[in-house]
Amino acid sequence: MAEIEIDTLGEDVPLLEGIRTTRSLRRLKPDPVPPALIRKVCEAATFAPSGGNRQPWFFVAVTEPERKAWIADRYRPAFLEYIAPAVEAAKDPEYPETQRKNMRAAIHLAEHLHEAPVLLFVAGWTRRGRPQLQALMPAVQNVLLACRAVGLGACLTQLHLAFGREIDEWLGLPENCPSCAMIPIGWPRGRYARPSRRSVDTCLFWERAEGID
Amino acid sequence: MAEIEIDTLGEDVPLLEGIRTTRSLRRLKPDPVPPALIRKVCEAATFAPSGGNRQPWFFVAVTEPERKAWIADRYRPAFLEYIAPAVEAAKDPEYPETQRKNMRAAIHLAEHLHEAPVLLFVAGWTRRGRPQLQALMPAVQNVLLACRAVGLGACLTQLHLAFGREIDEWLGLPENCPSCAMIPIGWPRGRYARPSRRSVDTCLFWERAEGID
Repeated sequence: MAEIEIDTLGEDVPLLEGIRTTRSLRRLKPDPVPPALIRKVCEAATFAPSGGNRQPWFFVAVTEPERKAWIADRYRPAFLEYIAPAVEAAKDPEYPETQRKNMRAAIHLAEHLHEAPVLLFVAGWTRRGRPQLQALMPAVQNVLLACRAVGLGACLTQLHLAFGREIDEWLGLPENCPSCAMIPIGWPRGRYARPSRRSVDTCLFWERAEGID
Repeated sequence: MAEIEIDTLGEDVPLLEGIRTTRSLRRLKPDPVPPALIRKVCEAATFAPSGGNRQPWFFVAVTEPERKAWIADRYRPAFLEYIAPAVEAAKDPEYPETQRKNMRAAIHLAEHLHEAPVLLFVAGWTRRGRPQLQALMPAVQNVLLACRAVGLGACLTQLHLAFGREIDEWLGLPENCPSCAMIPIGWPRGRYARPSRRSVDTCLFWERAEGID
């Protein structure tokens, strides 16, 4: 990866195929990621829609080892609390293998979070006291898809929110511009592939939903 | 559009170029959209990430004229209240022309909402009493991008939320599975193009945000 053409990288990946094969990649190589490539994926994020075209988003890319370690030290306990019920449930031999694999990958991420080359935080102005998730989450999805396009591994996490205000202050984010997502980014050990999903026919209704309760 | 190959339609549009040229298209032709194409864009939505792969989403596609009219009758007053300050501000000759054009397109949409071939609602299970926007909004973004790929016009609206519970009941959505977005979809009169955005360099920070207040 010594020489990559940032401008052309990933430009030929098809949109629909890209959408269908963007899965969470939580095992990342520690190799550095060119800042220009992070800029490219964040630029993709800015094409998300927002009410009144307000574009409330900000991105903070953390790459310095000691800063990543500081974040990882807070992420890990929040993650352990979150994952505990799944760890318990996974002792059952009938626990679904896909979920077991995802759980292991999530544990790997938590243990190696400080080694991820980039921890990208997405933040944005609040409106009437609340984060504008309707604008920020489409931007996040664009980040994940753009990472898919250029071959970077990424996943969406929100567990840092357990330490939200502490982390935000440390990221230079004022109270009215909180972070809503953390996206660890790096060159993946795994590869992109179609993730497991229930069929669209189980969740698409015509005219009126039936049987949701 | 009598004969279109749903399976292959839009498959060659590049991902990054698609992201950069997905803008809100609010002027739609009344011509019908094949249900299989709506299914295709909703399937794209299901590849969004969700915590624990819970996939909380449901989609309700409304196409019957009297049902669309019922929704439009509720959307319009909510829209008029929302747009009033912009209409007032736009009387100033120095009001930015881009914003004026967007305002006119939004007014057009409100006046013609009942003529849009499809009003697609995205809904989802709440968790701890709140809609899981962190999963639903990435799915919405996938809908908008998939529409871009296949050449359908679309835009994200939330103004129906002013009548949220009334509309949800009518859509067959229980209280713990509210809609969070309405996406009018149809063949566009305009075309996709790069929307106006501030430079990513004004919103991307390294290590620590500076000057946000």
